[in-house]
Amino acid sequence: MMDRPLLLKRLLWRAENVFGDKEIITRLPGGYHSYTYADYGRRTRQLAKALEGLGVRPGDRVGTLAWNHHRHFEAYFGVPCMGGVLHTINLRLFPEQIAFIVNHAGDRVLLVDPDQLPLVEELADRLETVEAFVVLGETVPPGTSLRPVYAYEELLADRPSDWEFPEFGEDAASGMCYTSGTTGDPKGVLYTHRSTVLHTLGLSLQDSFGVGEAMRLFLITPMFHANAWGLPFAAAMQGSTLILPGVHPEPRTYLEVIEDQRATHAVGAVTVGVLMRDAVEGAERAYDLSSLDVLWLGGQAPPRGLMEWWKTYSDTVIPQGWGMTEASPLLTYTALRSKYAGASEEERYRVRVKQGIPLPLAEIRLVGERGEDLPWDGKSVGEYAVRAPWTARAYYNDPRTAKSFVDGWFRTGDVGVIDPDGYVHLVDRVKDLVKSGGEWISSVELENSLMAHPKVAEAAVIGIPDETWMERPLACITPRGDVDRAELMEYLSARFAKWWVPTEYVFLHEVPKTGTGKFDKKALRARYADPAARREERR
Amino acid sequence: MMDRPLLLKRLLWRAENVFGDKEIITRLPGGYHSYTYADYGRRTRQLAKALEGLGVRPGDRVGTLAWNHHRHFEAYFGVPCMGGVLHTINLRLFPEQIAFIVNHAGDRVLLVDPDQLPLVEELADRLETVEAFVVLGETVPPGTSLRPVYAYEELLADRPSDWEFPEFGEDAASGMCYTSGTTGDPKGVLYTHRSTVLHTLGLSLQDSFGVGEAMRLFLITPMFHANAWGLPFAAAMQGSTLILPGVHPEPRTYLEVIEDQRATHAVGAVTVGVLMRDAVEGAERAYDLSSLDVLWLGGQAPPRGLMEWWKTYSDTVIPQGWGMTEASPLLTYTALRSKYAGASEEERYRVRVKQGIPLPLAEIRLVGERGEDLPWDGKSVGEYAVRAPWTARAYYNDPRTAKSFVDGWFRTGDVGVIDPDGYVHLVDRVKDLVKSGGEWISSVELENSLMAHPKVAEAAVIGIPDETWMERPLACITPRGDVDRAELMEYLSARFAKWWVPTEYVFLHEVPKTGTGKFDKKALRARYADPAARREERR
Repeated sequence: MMDRPLLLKRLLWRAENVFGDKEIITRLPGGYHSYTYADYGRRTRQLAKALEGLGVRPGDRVGTLAWNHHRHFEAYFGVPCMGGVLHTINLRLFPEQIAFIVNHAGDRVLLVDPDQLPLVEELADRLETVEAFVVLGETVPPGTSLRPVYAYEELLADRPSDWEFPEFGEDAASGMCYTSGTTGDPKGVLYTHRSTVLHTLGLSLQDSFGVGEAMRLFLITPMFHANAWGLPFAAAMQGSTLILPGVHPEPRTYLEVIEDQRATHAVGAVTVGVLMRDAVEGAERAYDLSSLDVLWLGGQAPPRGLMEWWKTYSDTVIPQGWGMTEASPLLTYTALRSKYAGASEEERYRVRVKQGIPLPLAEIRLVGERGEDLPWDGKSVGEYAVRAPWTARAYYNDPRTAKSFVDGWFRTGDVGVIDPDGYVHLVDRVKDLVKSGGEWISSVELENSLMAHPKVAEAAVIGIPDETWMERPLACITPRGDVDRAELMEYLSARFAKWWVPTEYVFLHEVPKTGTGKFDKKALRARYADPAARREERR
Repeated sequence: MMDRPLLLKRLLWRAENVFGDKEIITRLPGGYHSYTYADYGRRTRQLAKALEGLGVRPGDRVGTLAWNHHRHFEAYFGVPCMGGVLHTINLRLFPEQIAFIVNHAGDRVLLVDPDQLPLVEELADRLETVEAFVVLGETVPPGTSLRPVYAYEELLADRPSDWEFPEFGEDAASGMCYTSGTTGDPKGVLYTHRSTVLHTLGLSLQDSFGVGEAMRLFLITPMFHANAWGLPFAAAMQGSTLILPGVHPEPRTYLEVIEDQRATHAVGAVTVGVLMRDAVEGAERAYDLSSLDVLWLGGQAPPRGLMEWWKTYSDTVIPQGWGMTEASPLLTYTALRSKYAGASEEERYRVRVKQGIPLPLAEIRLVGERGEDLPWDGKSVGEYAVRAPWTARAYYNDPRTAKSFVDGWFRTGDVGVIDPDGYVHLVDRVKDLVKSGGEWISSVELENSLMAHPKVAEAAVIGIPDETWMERPLACITPRGDVDRAELMEYLSARFAKWWVPTEYVFLHEVPKTGTGKFDKKALRARYADPAARREERR
């Protein structure tokens, strides 16, 4: 058989040659920018030449701090197809974390949205490896202190666009993302061309996302969040119309874009589904969302009430999946198996609240506390261990690898059951993490910081249910003297991104412990899920 | 990323664990055999142990001469997952060709259907590498002269079924098929685990065959014909219900199976679609084929009238694809792009008679006579050159490789145009081959043999349209003395399979030639497409 490495440029070949007339649409203030995949392909080559001109060589990292728009999407193929590594950075992180990530990844060039310049200017002194900043716009805004700094459009202008991307091995790195873990600094995951191509095929399969040419795919999930589920790659390969929300989108914006562009599929965090619903209900006019067949909501399990609301409002289905940055991200997808075709609505919901069956090539085990295999009986609860050609085998340059990657399997930290017919159903989600608006908050980092406060003896942070954000952190404090909520909030606000800081606190004589002396978060979660219980123990 | 070789056992893992309750159904005389993918997985392991017991080691070839049934399907995973190479042999070939193929491949074990025993007994003396024969049944029929010979079920009985298939590199050979070429002996194509897994993903994509769990897939295409388009692998990976027609199926049998098993999708040669239609029209009762949504007809382009008949009779769609043994086989698929959604029936047919757009990872070029690239303008006619991770880079152990594989591209020998939006449309199909009932007939082999006849000066064989077989060979003869149709038929019948032998002959003063002195087959085809023209020049 031919030795054809699985390279991202093969997907781009299809986008350009077979779907050269299909469109990529970006919301602008007061209108839309739109061009074709043929235009897009030419610009990815111009971007590659521009980066080459800045000294970027195969294997070099190119970071992005950007919203979802066509220029950011150009980096998705332009950077890896020239041999570079696209490092998408979560612009919602705390500046300290962003500096850590850029340095740890060794980014040589940063592509930055104009509105992110103040953030980058503040950090610039601490960025050890960055040699050039590129502003994603027509010109460099006057007055920026960044040096050297270029305007994206000026860099691309007049670059050649009709040459062929180079050929290299499929195990070459293509991208990287950082994930917040339970302990300490963010952890990096390095994707390869091979893993990304295989994951893209996985997304486009029947009974998976089934990305196809007829889709008008509205990408609300940030492109810095696990590659926006890898959907930008799938859209290009399959020729879907890609619709991007642009900078600073708001819930009402989403509704307008769906209406304007007749989006058939949209993808975002569960919180996005909630906020859109609230915007519809609070609006003075009706929105025509009838084009929207499917709304994929990720980050955590969408509540059934939300699924029902969307079904009623616009006949929109919310299928589920399960994934993580370490897995590119998708591992399972809730295709409703044909045996449920004749089932009652109630029975179908009982299946649809599960996270689905493993994708082809993704294997899963249910692991007990002593590392033993547990049966797929829908009752035994264990931790999921996974492996696939698109799951990481290690964190990038990180000693914490050993704990998560055991005998060739990635221990996900997620806990649940597996049904006899392969449906994965998370019952406890992730043990220690809090997931707010689809983004991780590390409880352990908050705890460590709180316990460093002179008036705090013990601190355990758990997730509590929240209607808008799905989960918010609750800090359970054993005080060492006189301390209150306001003081701790002020203390944490100086150290963490705003959305990380808990607004709810309870004060205890002692944090309950498990047999091995660890905080018993399961007990805390059970106790404080009820707002009334929290009110009792506030000061 | 994890180093997870793309092995067929990963697809089997999914079939067994996720779709363990789904069924594989085989038509038997007077009933059906049925079991689950869980049962199937256990038997593939028993088969592997049985073959191991016969001395089969990694890399060894295991040949099959068999119809489409569950035992043959067990070899599809059982042989390659243990490291062996599954060599499916076309049981309709002339015995001489079968002997050549078995020897050329070096098959060590042959799995043979009971009805094929007389054929194999006749050949046994000439099979140089075969060390054991296995009869695909409960017992060995008494009186066979084959030695050593075993019964499949006796070999499998009591073998362990709960062990894990070994891990090895994805470039290991998994299967092989032989294709008849324009010149001389059949040519072998060796598939690898990697190529087969990637092709299976390709078949299961949205806008491709889209093989999925809900399909009830009736596999009429022989499992010795380019791996039955690779669909058995896709069915297992995706958990489709697989329906197999068993031994010696006939057109009426197909109709009964579709009716009995409520098949939703069926696949076969164009001739099968014609014969089923004729069987429906000649039947004394109506057949309920309402379950059949899709009928894939391969081998050559289905005539529009046939497409319309099926649409009218059972609301069955006939999409097209294009492929070949050298390409695993699928390269293109006619997904109707969304821009045709509002098109008239007439416009849609104009697209649907084309062979479709390249699958992801499959690249295509249109090559002119001097090797130059021709534009995709829907007008320029050239030869298709292709490459994909599932196309061959050489024929197996064959010097004819150099001619077909040029600069990393496979020259398909097929000729046509490519539209600006990537639709491939074959205008001249294959230059020299005749395709009868979906099977190749080598015109050059027939010509060489005819010209060896003492009373024949020149012989050119071309394909002429045939309502049932799509094409039949016509022999255009310049005689050297007194010779007639009957004599030549008798002469060829001793040398070729019955269906290869032309029944129509025309006798000419001279076969027309091209500028370079070759037979001008284009001119001959144009002249003799009309039966009246042929009648005039018969004797």
